[in-house]
Amino acid sequence: MEKVRFGIVGVSNMGSVHARSFLEGKIENGVLTAVCDQKQDRLDAVTAYKGGGEVKQFTDHLEMYASGLCDAVIIAVPHYYHPQLVIDALNSGLHVVCEKPAGVYTKQVKEMNAVAEKSDKLFTMMFNQRTNCVYRKMREMVMDGTLGEIKRVNWIITTWYRSQSYYDSGGWRATWRGEGGGVLFNQCPHQIDLLQWITGMMPERVHSFCHFGKWHDIEVEDDVTAYMEFPNGATGVFVTSTGDTPGTNRFEILGNNGKLVCENVSETEDRLTFTKLKIPEREFNATYKGGFGEPEKEVINVETDGKNPQHVGILNNFANAILGLEPLFVNGTEGLNSVELMDSMLLSTWLDKTVTLPIDDDLYLAELNKRIAASRRKEAADVVLDTSNTYR
Amino acid sequence: MEKVRFGIVGVSNMGSVHARSFLEGKIENGVLTAVCDQKQDRLDAVTAYKGGGEVKQFTDHLEMYASGLCDAVIIAVPHYYHPQLVIDALNSGLHVVCEKPAGVYTKQVKEMNAVAEKSDKLFTMMFNQRTNCVYRKMREMVMDGTLGEIKRVNWIITTWYRSQSYYDSGGWRATWRGEGGGVLFNQCPHQIDLLQWITGMMPERVHSFCHFGKWHDIEVEDDVTAYMEFPNGATGVFVTSTGDTPGTNRFEILGNNGKLVCENVSETEDRLTFTKLKIPEREFNATYKGGFGEPEKEVINVETDGKNPQHVGILNNFANAILGLEPLFVNGTEGLNSVELMDSMLLSTWLDKTVTLPIDDDLYLAELNKRIAASRRKEAADVVLDTSNTYR
Repeated sequence: MEKVRFGIVGVSNMGSVHARSFLEGKIENGVLTAVCDQKQDRLDAVTAYKGGGEVKQFTDHLEMYASGLCDAVIIAVPHYYHPQLVIDALNSGLHVVCEKPAGVYTKQVKEMNAVAEKSDKLFTMMFNQRTNCVYRKMREMVMDGTLGEIKRVNWIITTWYRSQSYYDSGGWRATWRGEGGGVLFNQCPHQIDLLQWITGMMPERVHSFCHFGKWHDIEVEDDVTAYMEFPNGATGVFVTSTGDTPGTNRFEILGNNGKLVCENVSETEDRLTFTKLKIPEREFNATYKGGFGEPEKEVINVETDGKNPQHVGILNNFANAILGLEPLFVNGTEGLNSVELMDSMLLSTWLDKTVTLPIDDDLYLAELNKRIAASRRKEAADVVLDTSNTYR
Repeated sequence: MEKVRFGIVGVSNMGSVHARSFLEGKIENGVLTAVCDQKQDRLDAVTAYKGGGEVKQFTDHLEMYASGLCDAVIIAVPHYYHPQLVIDALNSGLHVVCEKPAGVYTKQVKEMNAVAEKSDKLFTMMFNQRTNCVYRKMREMVMDGTLGEIKRVNWIITTWYRSQSYYDSGGWRATWRGEGGGVLFNQCPHQIDLLQWITGMMPERVHSFCHFGKWHDIEVEDDVTAYMEFPNGATGVFVTSTGDTPGTNRFEILGNNGKLVCENVSETEDRLTFTKLKIPEREFNATYKGGFGEPEKEVINVETDGKNPQHVGILNNFANAILGLEPLFVNGTEGLNSVELMDSMLLSTWLDKTVTLPIDDDLYLAELNKRIAASRRKEAADVVLDTSNTYR
């Protein structure tokens, strides 16, 4: 069988990781044929890698798209360019994988989704954390009714510590003009996506307390506490920061049938615990006559399939889906949800009020543009950092 | 040495527990001499208890105060009566212990504190949870600088489950007129007090999302998510509910030197963990040059003195303090802080905006009075519930 031929747009941090995955043979039904970047040294780093000699270099993504060398492309450029490069790829008849986030503002992402929905090409988002066995299991337990109707969702995810030197390493980092946001857009898009994917719910109201440059000399948010209300009456809290160390990664979902807690107990281990009620809470509440008292419960250490293929899992699935060998795992248009959530959190703080979802796309863009207009230009060396084990 | 002679006003749930503590000889330097209640059966239950035959019965607290039988009194009546009965006691020349909360609204508590500050008698609050070795240790580690400047405080305390039958057991329960609040005023005053006592900080701004009768057929709040901002820039979240089971009791304080986490790992065990940084975070942030990276850390299972004398601890300390044998552990006027916090949480939701502390006492009372005026009168049997192990 022919392998799917991949091109990568942007071979800086994440793009170069993907390039090496292909060159190391980790993508069974995919082969790297082309890379595109504006920096020659980055292109050379890929083609100098073992087996990279056959990979064609481009500095213009449209040229690469039109080259006939690719069946699919991976978009790994700064956030603002994601939607346009995805649209260009789909319009060029290419399948496309987009790095997170789908974009910075909902209006742009909706335009991308409109093109994707009309296209017969496959479109996926690099939501590699969805491949984590623990998160897949959590979603399964929500979707199959094990947990029952969700009542509360609390995620404290403050394990995204960054020091000032991180922010000083790139002039575009942590600016409204360069990244369009801070911890939400750069560190947290996975958790924001998982929140809605695992629960199967988007909040209908968000009230958020974002702090801008609280712990660092930056202009974007580096500390966020968001309160959410869901259509079914559930509420939730999402707390994140790049200023906390030691951080916390603790995600609890309370349902009518019990409570699911995912705790990051070490850098490599997540523990999933389900405390199961013998009688659903709503039934107990209505029928119990003893005043004080709770339903009996049982604590279960949840087992998973142990598989956590991350980025190569997404790429293998994508190549296989293109070849018709398996269904597509992540529908790329779902990237809108996390952008909508992140935008709602910023918008609530900017407006100092509760916002309802879906947000007003034009209002958000207008508010963002105000901040871009006032965005400072940082003078900073464009340092390439060692990102090993820093993306999750 | 003469023992301190105690009277108790209100010998329903908590008052009867205190009465038995005296009669069982648990208060070394205290003796029960009088009890006051409007219900004869409750008075009889105390005097029929072993050794209770000498205890004098009263139905009017002022008569008991004037009887010459008491050096000190314990106030264990419904919340609204606390301040007036404390004031009457102090004005009668008696030392006084008040059950939590200090009152329902700040204006009333300030009037009580003004009297207490002029009095030469001792006044304490039954903040028995402050005697818990784990909470004492946490406060010690904040106060002695071990934790460093506090940056974040998150307490999810949802282990206060109550079923509808609890609320149906008393006509006064969970009404604005009868209790003046719900989970905050009845279940959570201890945690609210501990929050400010352990951290040594009161927030300067509170934005709260209270839900009234969300999980039960009641008119007061049974679900609260509060966001707090402290004068030093720290932020925090406090989440409580009587609708969650299995609940969570997890209290984390992040400081510049590390993170302290208290987790209720079973019904009888709290685990206290300190993850200590080798370099304080603010210093690391300013000096580290590597981009990605965090200070090295060490996980310490914190040992405590293991003592947790609870209510009898407060009463023994109080009797001893009256006799000049040891310093008073809890200054009763500190009860204002938890009332101010609880009031701010309700007020923020009532006004649908962030409130600054100290709150406007008159505005709070006016808002509360609106709700008392509209308060429904419940027709319910006044059932005595078995409260064993339900107060913490």
